[in-house]
Amino acid sequence: MSVARELGRLARRDPAIEVHLVSNENFFVFQPLLPEIVACGVEPAHILNPIRQLCPDVHFHCRAVESFDPTAKTVTLAAADSRHRQTLSYDHLVLALGLTIDLSRTPGMAEHSKPIKTLGDAFHLRNHVLDRLEQADIEPDEGRRRQLLTVVAVGGGFSGVETVAEINDMLRGVIRFYPRARVVGTRMILVHSRDRILNELTEGLARFAEKKLRQRGVEIILDSRVKEATPEGVILGDDRRIPAGTVICTVGNAPHPLVSASSLPQDKGRVQVEVELRVKGFSDIWALGDAAMIPDIKRSGFCPPTAQYALRQGRHCARNILAVISNRAPTPFAFGGLGQLAVVGHRCGVAEVFGLRIAGILAWFFWRSVYLSKLPGLKCKVRVAVDWLLDVVFPRDITKFSLERTDRVQRAHYRRGDVIVHQGEIGDSFYIIENGEVEVLQRGAGGEPIRVAVRKAGESFGEIALLKATPRTATVRCLTPVDVILLTGRDFRTLVDSCGVLRSRWMEDVEDRLSSPAACK
Amino acid sequence: MSVARELGRLARRDPAIEVHLVSNENFFVFQPLLPEIVACGVEPAHILNPIRQLCPDVHFHCRAVESFDPTAKTVTLAAADSRHRQTLSYDHLVLALGLTIDLSRTPGMAEHSKPIKTLGDAFHLRNHVLDRLEQADIEPDEGRRRQLLTVVAVGGGFSGVETVAEINDMLRGVIRFYPRARVVGTRMILVHSRDRILNELTEGLARFAEKKLRQRGVEIILDSRVKEATPEGVILGDDRRIPAGTVICTVGNAPHPLVSASSLPQDKGRVQVEVELRVKGFSDIWALGDAAMIPDIKRSGFCPPTAQYALRQGRHCARNILAVISNRAPTPFAFGGLGQLAVVGHRCGVAEVFGLRIAGILAWFFWRSVYLSKLPGLKCKVRVAVDWLLDVVFPRDITKFSLERTDRVQRAHYRRGDVIVHQGEIGDSFYIIENGEVEVLQRGAGGEPIRVAVRKAGESFGEIALLKATPRTATVRCLTPVDVILLTGRDFRTLVDSCGVLRSRWMEDVEDRLSSPAACK
Repeated sequence: MSVARELGRLARRDPAIEVHLVSNENFFVFQPLLPEIVACGVEPAHILNPIRQLCPDVHFHCRAVESFDPTAKTVTLAAADSRHRQTLSYDHLVLALGLTIDLSRTPGMAEHSKPIKTLGDAFHLRNHVLDRLEQADIEPDEGRRRQLLTVVAVGGGFSGVETVAEINDMLRGVIRFYPRARVVGTRMILVHSRDRILNELTEGLARFAEKKLRQRGVEIILDSRVKEATPEGVILGDDRRIPAGTVICTVGNAPHPLVSASSLPQDKGRVQVEVELRVKGFSDIWALGDAAMIPDIKRSGFCPPTAQYALRQGRHCARNILAVISNRAPTPFAFGGLGQLAVVGHRCGVAEVFGLRIAGILAWFFWRSVYLSKLPGLKCKVRVAVDWLLDVVFPRDITKFSLERTDRVQRAHYRRGDVIVHQGEIGDSFYIIENGEVEVLQRGAGGEPIRVAVRKAGESFGEIALLKATPRTATVRCLTPVDVILLTGRDFRTLVDSCGVLRSRWMEDVEDRLSSPAACK
Repeated sequence: MSVARELGRLARRDPAIEVHLVSNENFFVFQPLLPEIVACGVEPAHILNPIRQLCPDVHFHCRAVESFDPTAKTVTLAAADSRHRQTLSYDHLVLALGLTIDLSRTPGMAEHSKPIKTLGDAFHLRNHVLDRLEQADIEPDEGRRRQLLTVVAVGGGFSGVETVAEINDMLRGVIRFYPRARVVGTRMILVHSRDRILNELTEGLARFAEKKLRQRGVEIILDSRVKEATPEGVILGDDRRIPAGTVICTVGNAPHPLVSASSLPQDKGRVQVEVELRVKGFSDIWALGDAAMIPDIKRSGFCPPTAQYALRQGRHCARNILAVISNRAPTPFAFGGLGQLAVVGHRCGVAEVFGLRIAGILAWFFWRSVYLSKLPGLKCKVRVAVDWLLDVVFPRDITKFSLERTDRVQRAHYRRGDVIVHQGEIGDSFYIIENGEVEVLQRGAGGEPIRVAVRKAGESFGEIALLKATPRTATVRCLTPVDVILLTGRDFRTLVDSCGVLRSRWMEDVEDRLSSPAACK
């Protein structure tokens, strides 16, 4: 967003330059405040900024990128209706894809822990913690109640420390509203694999943060790894079991699938770039942020994956692209960092800024001021400031923001003659026929539709495109009024992908159908 | 909530009186502002109030009620872990269950329209409308673009009118951020079955509202019903097709399932009560709000299903219950209503208060003041007031609040010897084994566990309890480390319930297993 915004601004008077921004979400989320979302200190919507309002000079596409092709110089997206593909051509391509998290490295972690990487993660973690409070308040068994009120966070970096600190503050503030849970009290545990937390900070400051966390009641287990997560909690490397109702995972960074699938030079899942932010060996592809391995020319090594670096890389990249377009030489990215900040609970922070170390309420206040000033959009600033003011006066909001909808089955109703899927489209659903009849048509040699099958109530269609990731192999048209039950491609794939046995059985069936379409008439 | 709050307050000094409140959500949602949520004018979280903070003198159970028994005087809920049941005994029972919406009366409506009954509905409708804007902005086909930007609302009562008015204002305010959608413009259509909208208001006021809506560009189709909804839009009674990207349904009130399943006297799906709010023929069951048919002794007929009546019924019911407990006579509920208010768009409202009719900006301002004063909780008032102030200065928030989470498959990992389900528990999931082996155990005559089957990768278990709605018929224990794929009971039931064919096949299988458990060894 920072590249597009700066490019749009600089090129406003030049109609020859078109800036396109593709993102699967139409908002920009201010990541450093995610732990406050979890802890009900700030409302989720308040840290979101609509990209269209932040980047008025940019063509915005609210879509997921499916692939990019450095040879053809194109980017492929799903089109508006998600059933077709759309291709954008580029002169310069900027990759700012970030990293993803891979929870599959520890058995049970993907199933039983909560990551905190996206807004949705923060939102669900918040609801989960509040749900545990509600459950603990009506649970008669004390051991079980203790378990429900235990939170384990895996990973002692910024994200783990701030999330634990915020949840700890929140639970202490609201537990009085849960009379039966209050008797037992809450337990917060931070598990870290190294000998001190916050390895990004100097040892003195990290030790201070550790002391403060322990004073606020957080148990810190160092030099220890979680080797297994189960529905009942976690098991440490030394076989100690910690029963817990909430397990938070902040470790396991993994490359973005588009990066790992690409031919770009990579190092530990990040794209290798030159000091000018251009990908090594390419003159028209740029990469920055967490997805890129950028030499740090002010210090040794590489730029750290933090917001202060990424924002500056964005603006620098925009200027370099304009330089290349106007035949000037791009300049190296040079930034030494301003310092680092972390909050460790109840109005207490630690900071290292311009070589100065501060800790306590001053650092906390500084933390809030810096983030408020960095939060894009005046409306967001006002709202977060109001949240922080309200937090002084009122107890934390404990609404378990349920998004239960009025029951709506995932079905669709079609009239006679309606076409449900068109041959050649992208497949996005799997269908089970509840009532009525459909015909399956395939184009013949001359393009004329040939009926290859009729499907009736209880039969299904649509799995071939989903399983083989090909466009629809046939058109399906209603012979009568038809009701179908829908399984979205995502649900279908989750089920099939995660179950090798199901998958292989289904594939056999599909291969049969593909080899002799007439057989399924 | 209003009954419990008042009872808790009045009985604070009497330890003999225990007030229990059961709700499946831990917050109270202020319904009249739902249309503003849809239109991005107010943030969802701002109209929610945590029940525990509003009702400090009440025992709160955040659970769904499964049934109540007027003979045994008990209410049954799912317990904390959802796998057991919990029973509460009562001396007095108050039913305030409201109504639900039944979308199945019109073909296609359940599948292709959006209701606006719950907070989740409002939230999803908001996202849906913003999604249509994003799609329209990248859609090359003009006809399709026009369709995406058309909104049809079915039902011209308060809810339909206010939702249409708010969405219309919102779209007009934000369309400038969507350059390609702006060229086409938006279209809003309100379909109502009678000859004028807002039948609750006097004709003069309703006509004024109609005129104002038309002036703001809303098309109003009177004396017309939607006879079918399809993925492409709606079809009216006279076979006119209206292509639309969004269909909102505000008609189809239906009784709450607990009410219709009960033996209480009912009329049109509502519980019949005496003027004292006691259910006819019962001395210890009370009913109020939308779920009850309450004689209106100030006027003729029955009390209208509005918030101003419901809140007063709640307080009155609390006083009557205390009267009965202390052997005094309960008094009849007598309230004539204060008037009615509706907003019809851009700072324009209509109102009828104490016999006085007002319309225009004054009525709009009055509407906002009344609702702000009725909104429970000072924190909510401050937040909504801030939202309304910000709305004067800033453009509407167009974040398509995505709650996409880091991919987490619905699976679970168990260790050898772990028990996945216990015989006798409530069934809440269906399991497919991905890796490992489990044994199925049933208690013998002497209570000793007998192995009746072993299940391996690719096999499944857990469907019997879900299909037959009985407690688990067996215990399942891991013979090896086990990974399972989970389908929640709800997803499983949706799929099975909505497909008769699937259901009957599965049931045959289940009957086989039940009649000869040894057969599945």
